[in-house]
Amino acid sequence: MKNICLILEYLGTNYCGFQRQKNGLSIQEVLENTLKDVTGEDIKTYPSGRTDAGVHALGQVVNFFTSSTITPEKFSVVLNLKLPLDIRVKNSFEVDQNFNSRKSAISKTYIYKIYNGKVLGAFDVGRCLFCGYKLDLNKMNEACKLIEGEHDFSSFVATNATTKTTIRTIYKAELRKDGEYLTFSVTGNGFLYNMVRILVGTLIEIGRGKISLNDLKILLQGNNRQKAGKTVSPDGLYLKEVKYN
Amino acid sequence: MKNICLILEYLGTNYCGFQRQKNGLSIQEVLENTLKDVTGEDIKTYPSGRTDAGVHALGQVVNFFTSSTITPEKFSVVLNLKLPLDIRVKNSFEVDQNFNSRKSAISKTYIYKIYNGKVLGAFDVGRCLFCGYKLDLNKMNEACKLIEGEHDFSSFVATNATTKTTIRTIYKAELRKDGEYLTFSVTGNGFLYNMVRILVGTLIEIGRGKISLNDLKILLQGNNRQKAGKTVSPDGLYLKEVKYN
Repeated sequence: MKNICLILEYLGTNYCGFQRQKNGLSIQEVLENTLKDVTGEDIKTYPSGRTDAGVHALGQVVNFFTSSTITPEKFSVVLNLKLPLDIRVKNSFEVDQNFNSRKSAISKTYIYKIYNGKVLGAFDVGRCLFCGYKLDLNKMNEACKLIEGEHDFSSFVATNATTKTTIRTIYKAELRKDGEYLTFSVTGNGFLYNMVRILVGTLIEIGRGKISLNDLKILLQGNNRQKAGKTVSPDGLYLKEVKYN
Repeated sequence: MKNICLILEYLGTNYCGFQRQKNGLSIQEVLENTLKDVTGEDIKTYPSGRTDAGVHALGQVVNFFTSSTITPEKFSVVLNLKLPLDIRVKNSFEVDQNFNSRKSAISKTYIYKIYNGKVLGAFDVGRCLFCGYKLDLNKMNEACKLIEGEHDFSSFVATNATTKTTIRTIYKAELRKDGEYLTFSVTGNGFLYNMVRILVGTLIEIGRGKISLNDLKILLQGNNRQKAGKTVSPDGLYLKEVKYN
């Protein structure tokens, strides 16, 4: 059995997220059905992490085991012929037997796109958050600096989430402005459920002056979900890159 | 009656084109229904030109007459509240009584986006032409220079089109490369039916070496539709801008 790794790009709009669900079409279901179609095998795929309904990926990493005679590099070609156009395999290659997309990852980068102008463009629907508020970018940049480092992110996790530890390390958090667009980029060793979307919701409140930098420092000490910003829409969220040793 | 001008952005994917059709939903039908909804009037809209099914607009110009008390600048706001998200009014203002979006125009600019890499990305579906051929960009740039000027474009018009004259003047034609993307930009005093899409089809054949620059010179003398390139997909075509005095 070979262990094959895929780099996936997808537009999450039409899917209920990466993970298989009873009541919706997932990326995983489409991908595994397509793998069955091209290999004849029942294949289970392992992603670097789930992405929620409507969340996009520029570089999701998935691995799976197969006895197929399709060469590792050919998988991208044969899968792209059969996959819907909103799910694309950018690359495929063989990896070590003990490689696991999630467990072997050393960091992940998400980006979140915000349109901070007057009218969200026709081409940005489902791909960008519309935020019409006047935002103090200096404060938001200072907030990014505070987010960096090891913290208890329990103020930034969905209330229904269950996880062993809420401690995570953020290696880099930054906000870039390009005309009326803002892109928040965050790299860390792992992310809690809804963490990036709650961080963005909190950054927006900081930009509006509704949450202070001091409030943020307290939030970063943990256990204060109610005082953090709201969970913003999945539309602007993209899993950009996963890194391995 | 005030003469109101709208600048429209739309994703053409879900529509049968700008113009009303019996067997499909057009931008015009949606726009006029929305105008009826907000003004109570039966309003006829006049575009700078039709765009075909699937063709997009970044700056379509439309005018209409109304007795509504809605102020000209407010039209963009009230229409955006009611229009589908893939049709947006970027701006609205009052114009002279004798202004006509089509007849008053002095130039139009279209752009055409081509992805010249290996796999069309999930985010480019319906928004970009996939072209996997190796292209000679120098030849294509030389071809752009030849296209500029006044020519009989009868080799570059859909065979079922009826028009008084096939003479048009192209003020500027250029091809820009940005990584694996190519953008053809063309500005002229007017365009024949399918003209930009046939010009792009011809440029691609020139890039592939299937049509020579000499062949192009002959095509630009007119009446040779069969020897020109094919009409490429509407996916990559955008009406970018219309200019007035």
